[in-house]
Amino acid sequence: MKKATTSPIPARGPADHEVRDQIVVAATEHFSRYGYEKTTVSDLAKAIGFSKAYIYKFFESKQAIGEMICANCLNQIETEVRAAVTQTDLPPEKLRRMFNVFTEASLRLFFQDRKLYEIAASAATENWQAVLAYEERVQKLLRDVLQEGRQSGDFERKTPLDETAMAIYLVMRPYLNPMLLQYSFDYTKVAPAQLSSLVLRSLSP
Amino acid sequence: MKKATTSPIPARGPADHEVRDQIVVAATEHFSRYGYEKTTVSDLAKAIGFSKAYIYKFFESKQAIGEMICANCLNQIETEVRAAVTQTDLPPEKLRRMFNVFTEASLRLFFQDRKLYEIAASAATENWQAVLAYEERVQKLLRDVLQEGRQSGDFERKTPLDETAMAIYLVMRPYLNPMLLQYSFDYTKVAPAQLSSLVLRSLSP
Repeated sequence: MKKATTSPIPARGPADHEVRDQIVVAATEHFSRYGYEKTTVSDLAKAIGFSKAYIYKFFESKQAIGEMICANCLNQIETEVRAAVTQTDLPPEKLRRMFNVFTEASLRLFFQDRKLYEIAASAATENWQAVLAYEERVQKLLRDVLQEGRQSGDFERKTPLDETAMAIYLVMRPYLNPMLLQYSFDYTKVAPAQLSSLVLRSLSP
Repeated sequence: MKKATTSPIPARGPADHEVRDQIVVAATEHFSRYGYEKTTVSDLAKAIGFSKAYIYKFFESKQAIGEMICANCLNQIETEVRAAVTQTDLPPEKLRRMFNVFTEASLRLFFQDRKLYEIAASAATENWQAVLAYEERVQKLLRDVLQEGRQSGDFERKTPLDETAMAIYLVMRPYLNPMLLQYSFDYTKVAPAQLSSLVLRSLSP
């Protein structure tokens, strides 16, 4: 390996996105140990060994860090769902997997760690951009699966696609949105199977 | 009118249920003005002009009064829904009305008065007996409507009745349960129509 000093490019620190990632990783650990509400940016700075001013160079507020953590969580859920959906060619099975994996992954990511849920709760309550964008992408994925099922002849085509998609999204929502999910624990075992069966009956041609 | 003194029955105060009602009415007003969490039984006693000990003769705790208020609210919602359902003979229309009236009445009773919502929130969180009993009755009403629709030939009969009823109950739940409803304000305009249409498509024979 070449030493930086021998290179014509001037020596520099880590890239911005690396520092951001480093802050987010440390903050996630700190929040999940001490709680989001109780932690200040000063606490975070002390824990990471950065100055408060240095953190503020990368994130304008604690909420901005929380948003990033929440966005990472949502991305992970979405990645799991997309992987499960891609692994089958049958549109009805794709829909079933959406119900199952969204519920499972959301439960696991938001509730195995109660402290992380606090961040998500804040995010969902305040309609953070990351959450709105996530909801948009879920609706888009749903429309794509419905479209496929209409083309394959598995799903009926009489109802306008947007109406079908919105109604199914509403059925899914209590198991997607962490705020709703916390009041649905009693049903998370049965709901994905029963609701996807109901939805599939509603889609039969 | 005969005077009590001329009657062979000894003079007595108001019946127990009258005192209970009086306490509940006064407490509802007091809670909705000052909040449920902040009010103590002492505050209530002072406001009503009863001694604290006298209130405790009728209710063992503030929560017991809250439960009664919440039960009254739920009864009122249920009465409205049953009236709307009875006014039509068509099972599909009965189902539509359940979605519409549960949403409307729950919004009106729990959220026009934010302070009353606090009581309901407490009730829903702690799984009060009144709430569990209400949920049971809603599920029973749903099964009755489904049964009627199966007999009239409006609804399919292949799926086990209990499964259909539970799935539809799960679809309705975010608009019945005040804790879920508070996160569904953005959808209360469209959800009853879109969800009842989806459910009716799922029931087509």
